[in-house]
Amino acid sequence: MVVTESGGGLCIGGFKASGARKGKYGLALIVADKVCRTAAVFTRNKIKASPVLLDMGKLGNGFQVIAANSGNANACVKEGMVDAERMCHLAAEETGVRVENVAVASTGIIGRPMDLDLIEELIKEAAGTLSSSPDGSSKAAKAIMTTDTMVKELSVEYKGIRVGGIAKGAGMISPDMATMLCFISTNADLGRNELQSALAEAVDESFNMLVIDGDMSTNDMVLLLSNSSKKCSLADFKHALKYFTREMARMMALDGEGATKYLEVEVKGAKSREAARRGARAIASSSLVKTALYGENPNWGRITAALGSITDFLFEETDIIFESSKGRAVVLEKGEAGDLKKAREVLGGKEIKVTVDLNMGDSGATAYGCDLTPEYVEINAGYS
Amino acid sequence: MVVTESGGGLCIGGFKASGARKGKYGLALIVADKVCRTAAVFTRNKIKASPVLLDMGKLGNGFQVIAANSGNANACVKEGMVDAERMCHLAAEETGVRVENVAVASTGIIGRPMDLDLIEELIKEAAGTLSSSPDGSSKAAKAIMTTDTMVKELSVEYKGIRVGGIAKGAGMISPDMATMLCFISTNADLGRNELQSALAEAVDESFNMLVIDGDMSTNDMVLLLSNSSKKCSLADFKHALKYFTREMARMMALDGEGATKYLEVEVKGAKSREAARRGARAIASSSLVKTALYGENPNWGRITAALGSITDFLFEETDIIFESSKGRAVVLEKGEAGDLKKAREVLGGKEIKVTVDLNMGDSGATAYGCDLTPEYVEINAGYS
Repeated sequence: MVVTESGGGLCIGGFKASGARKGKYGLALIVADKVCRTAAVFTRNKIKASPVLLDMGKLGNGFQVIAANSGNANACVKEGMVDAERMCHLAAEETGVRVENVAVASTGIIGRPMDLDLIEELIKEAAGTLSSSPDGSSKAAKAIMTTDTMVKELSVEYKGIRVGGIAKGAGMISPDMATMLCFISTNADLGRNELQSALAEAVDESFNMLVIDGDMSTNDMVLLLSNSSKKCSLADFKHALKYFTREMARMMALDGEGATKYLEVEVKGAKSREAARRGARAIASSSLVKTALYGENPNWGRITAALGSITDFLFEETDIIFESSKGRAVVLEKGEAGDLKKAREVLGGKEIKVTVDLNMGDSGATAYGCDLTPEYVEINAGYS
Repeated sequence: MVVTESGGGLCIGGFKASGARKGKYGLALIVADKVCRTAAVFTRNKIKASPVLLDMGKLGNGFQVIAANSGNANACVKEGMVDAERMCHLAAEETGVRVENVAVASTGIIGRPMDLDLIEELIKEAAGTLSSSPDGSSKAAKAIMTTDTMVKELSVEYKGIRVGGIAKGAGMISPDMATMLCFISTNADLGRNELQSALAEAVDESFNMLVIDGDMSTNDMVLLLSNSSKKCSLADFKHALKYFTREMARMMALDGEGATKYLEVEVKGAKSREAARRGARAIASSSLVKTALYGENPNWGRITAALGSITDFLFEETDIIFESSKGRAVVLEKGEAGDLKKAREVLGGKEIKVTVDLNMGDSGATAYGCDLTPEYVEINAGYS
């Protein structure tokens, strides 16, 4: 049995959503039919935006409503917590849900006070148009976009388990403009601890392996709400959830700020999972690897150098393979350089897979990223 | 008494130098009048170029000659060590120095075999034009340039102690094209352990605080050769050496690949030196801080987010100040945003100093860097 995909997003049954937008300020509203068992992963940045701190404190209550605004991060402002609480109250009022079951999230510029009048206006508009159709989910997904150029939503089904959701993020892990947010709905009837462990594991293999610019956000948040309407095994749920988060991570990498190419880096044959993870991330985050990718330049020395900055390996045992729609090229085989002309051809593709086999052990990991382009610089030089 | 500067470079008395170049391949030759007490700092990359490994093994002998080529890194090639040894022998022959006292260094593309015929030709040419005048040092400095746009040499004097040297590096710490090399001459009559401790400390506060693209080279090397002709105190020598390495680090940051602006980040009021060092480096390496600098965009939220990814601090206690030739702006004062219009003006300058005062303790550190520009991407996309 395989996981099946549809574009429907959050609205997998038992969830309504909508969104509203005014210029660069947007608001997504998500409402479940009941209080959900909730799992969450929050940014590890020492400076956390007020909505993050507020949700962390309330997580144990379970959430029924998520109100997420874009355009202002509500971070590093003195009135931040007061404003986050006011936003909760406004969403509670409009949806008729108790305030302790309302989560808030924000993404946008750091250091500016929130315009609560505008938030109120947008919450009212979104609440008036809540829908359990795919259209409701799309509206919510669009409302939280900032520099995103693609709407990010997905729903998957596996053995009757449904996992749906929306996300935003194009400059992950980036502090003030492209913060990653992801809101996930499911019907999986599992305990809170099981949901939390499944989410932590899925995020670890997907969003935590996604590198766009290496900056860490003050606002990152992944919330998983379950309405517990489908009995299932933890293993089956993990399978469905991991599929979902991996595809979401891919969508974000594909939509990386200014990116012209998608990069997937698999390090295998490593002595430990940690070495493979760190190695794959180091390669996907190297500015020199990313610029070489942009230039379709098969400069594999940058890959070995990035890997060597992180972990021990035997150059003489290492294989490096490039793959894309343009074919497959072995660029390094047991330390011998391969066909660089073919490698350059392969880099002409839009989605590039780089496999590094260290031939030292059985562990592997995959990181997701994109190229570094002049457009990335221009986007981030100008944004405010 | 203050340190005085001159542009003379390596040739501080008792040292000769020269260089030769053919297209993108260059060679610098440095010859001391006697075997020198030698201290060194090498790259921490797990994958080290063959010349690095060779010099590490011979360091105890002390060096009298350094032969450094540009254009080929002599890294990740099976015959690398054999070629590095042959290069040593060629330099020993041409200079009449014993091979155990010859150091080699390489910078350039990874993964390509060395052209030893060309190396021999360049060594002969350089050996034939060795000179103890400033011109000899300049020739050597020019011969090791790759993407560098400025010749990097300096000599300083303090209480009769002389420290001179040349360096190359524009994409530090970068794996295959802009590797940092620095060769330093001195007359300081100190023991080998004293020289080593002084060098380690000076490098730690200068080159190790220099961030251009965050990539780590396989070829980085700093060699310090002393001909022991001037009795002095360790403290005085450290003072002179630190001045020298700090100015060299500044030159490299000013010449960062594609850079339009120089960035100096001082974190002070930290609880520990390590927190200050890591914080200053995190700010100077953030892609978002670097692009904001390029865009003259006073987006201080990126600074607090970069800092928060590394260390705990109290936003409400933090001050951030921008300074340049265009003036001074307090952009954050105890957590309150300051004059952003003035801040934008200040960022119009070419050399920007950012001071972050955490107001938590007595420790501080400074990092050196530059902006991230579309030109950086173009340079590194195309280089091969």
